[in-house]
Amino acid sequence: MPKDVKRLYLTESEVNEMLDMKLALDALDEVFRARSAGEVRNEPRHRLAAGNGSMNFMAAAWPEKGWAGHKSYVNGDFRVMLYGTRGEGLLAVIGAGRMGQVRTGAASGIATRYMARENSSSVGIIGSGYQAETQLEAVCAVRDIKDVKVFSRTAEKRDRFASVMSDRLGVNIVAVDSKEAAADGMDILVAVTSSVDPVITGDMIEPGIHINAAGNNSWMKRELDTAAIVKADLVACDDIDQSKIECGELMRAVEVGQFAWESLVRLDRIVAGLRTARNSDTDVTLFESQGVAFEDLAVCGRLYELALERGVGTELG
Amino acid sequence: MPKDVKRLYLTESEVNEMLDMKLALDALDEVFRARSAGEVRNEPRHRLAAGNGSMNFMAAAWPEKGWAGHKSYVNGDFRVMLYGTRGEGLLAVIGAGRMGQVRTGAASGIATRYMARENSSSVGIIGSGYQAETQLEAVCAVRDIKDVKVFSRTAEKRDRFASVMSDRLGVNIVAVDSKEAAADGMDILVAVTSSVDPVITGDMIEPGIHINAAGNNSWMKRELDTAAIVKADLVACDDIDQSKIECGELMRAVEVGQFAWESLVRLDRIVAGLRTARNSDTDVTLFESQGVAFEDLAVCGRLYELALERGVGTELG
Repeated sequence: MPKDVKRLYLTESEVNEMLDMKLALDALDEVFRARSAGEVRNEPRHRLAAGNGSMNFMAAAWPEKGWAGHKSYVNGDFRVMLYGTRGEGLLAVIGAGRMGQVRTGAASGIATRYMARENSSSVGIIGSGYQAETQLEAVCAVRDIKDVKVFSRTAEKRDRFASVMSDRLGVNIVAVDSKEAAADGMDILVAVTSSVDPVITGDMIEPGIHINAAGNNSWMKRELDTAAIVKADLVACDDIDQSKIECGELMRAVEVGQFAWESLVRLDRIVAGLRTARNSDTDVTLFESQGVAFEDLAVCGRLYELALERGVGTELG
Repeated sequence: MPKDVKRLYLTESEVNEMLDMKLALDALDEVFRARSAGEVRNEPRHRLAAGNGSMNFMAAAWPEKGWAGHKSYVNGDFRVMLYGTRGEGLLAVIGAGRMGQVRTGAASGIATRYMARENSSSVGIIGSGYQAETQLEAVCAVRDIKDVKVFSRTAEKRDRFASVMSDRLGVNIVAVDSKEAAADGMDILVAVTSSVDPVITGDMIEPGIHINAAGNNSWMKRELDTAAIVKADLVACDDIDQSKIECGELMRAVEVGQFAWESLVRLDRIVAGLRTARNSDTDVTLFESQGVAFEDLAVCGRLYELALERGVGTELG
């Protein structure tokens, strides 16, 4: 490798020190624009059965930026390998659990920035797990949110989420006792569950709402029923190839003739201004977040640069 | 991760200290048997364009052994990530350039062990690059080889190969000035080139010969012409899925109706004794080596165990 290249090992806690939502939002905004210009290659997630779980791996390359890399994970241990594409070889091995959580939030943040009504001020969130925190944080980072309602099945968990997150984000969060109550009258609705049965049904969709469906990444599950998908005037995703193999709700809607893959829009085209997200304040918009490798690559490239700048990480031989 | 698990970073030179052909042959013999028993999952190589080259990545899981992992490489920097499948998470990041060279040799060694005539004593080898060395070493490890002929286009390189390798392996190696001369009268023939045009043609195939085609892994190239493939009584490969996207000579033979994918045999079935390689000493056998992820996984799993035993490598946090 070129003499002055540093090869770094970054642990989860080192990443946690450096990573915030702003870094992830900036990284994703940039990489979505680059993708719309044809600069980014992405390979959907693959899975191999591996004992009690599976090995997952997904890869991307962004040669104009000088980065290629992949994320893999087995039993909850997430790692990204970052390579330089200008002869440097391996640049970093990066603990990527927290990173994945933040970048998945940030993807919904980007979708919200470009798809939700400008004056959106309320959010309903269904799900209160660890991914729900960054979903809400990202939405609050891109819109002036005043009111939040949260529902999840266990009262204790949704109460705790409301309390912890209202302190952290400085917004009013109320735990409610049904998914319908969480959706009622909200400008933005977020589903971040691992539900097999739809948590957002057609009757919950009101004019003008923007929805982020950020939970599932398996065709065996779904968060929206087909009636809800049909009500959307525009459906966007981070990657169409990956949606076709992982997005259970769209796959079902296509199978029953209620949705066409041809109408699915890549978020990068909206970010780059090549496509309008909404024609009016009553349009319903839906972002189907899959979580893709180029998002990991963009965030991890910035983490590597920041680690160099701050002298964080263990140097590898 | 469980308390007593060590996570290691192994450099190319540390791997080089530990790795020999015997380790690779033993590892591959074991993993081919395991694969025939359905214990191994494999994902073919994928490539993404990345600047001056491409990022390559390929993955495998062998949960019965407790390992899952993948190899990736960009611009000649090869790395394997090895995970434990029993809750350990990441076990090792392993420099995998030399490893790949040895395991590719060993795959041809295994094929030769189970497919070539027992009394094979001569080898013709076409190609004299760095992959040619381990190809010859592996064949010499599984058969009592007395005579070797080598051809490659540059006289200086084939002469050097003959000199260096006859010292190293203690066999008689003669550099010859045509590919036909390298094949003439030999029991085993090895092609290990990156040729676009076939180096083994139908007229070079004599009864009883075993051929290892180990060079190409791109559909744009080929080492055998279709006439040579037609002369083979049995064609084996390490992975059928990968052959269908990378084995240029078989893809062409199928396209022109001279070969059927249904007749392609997985080497693991031969190793496990589920399939006979040859019915007579005049049968022609052909091994199409693609180089697949479960081979990397098997060798790297053993390297990790050996490194633990010997205290080699840098411990990662």
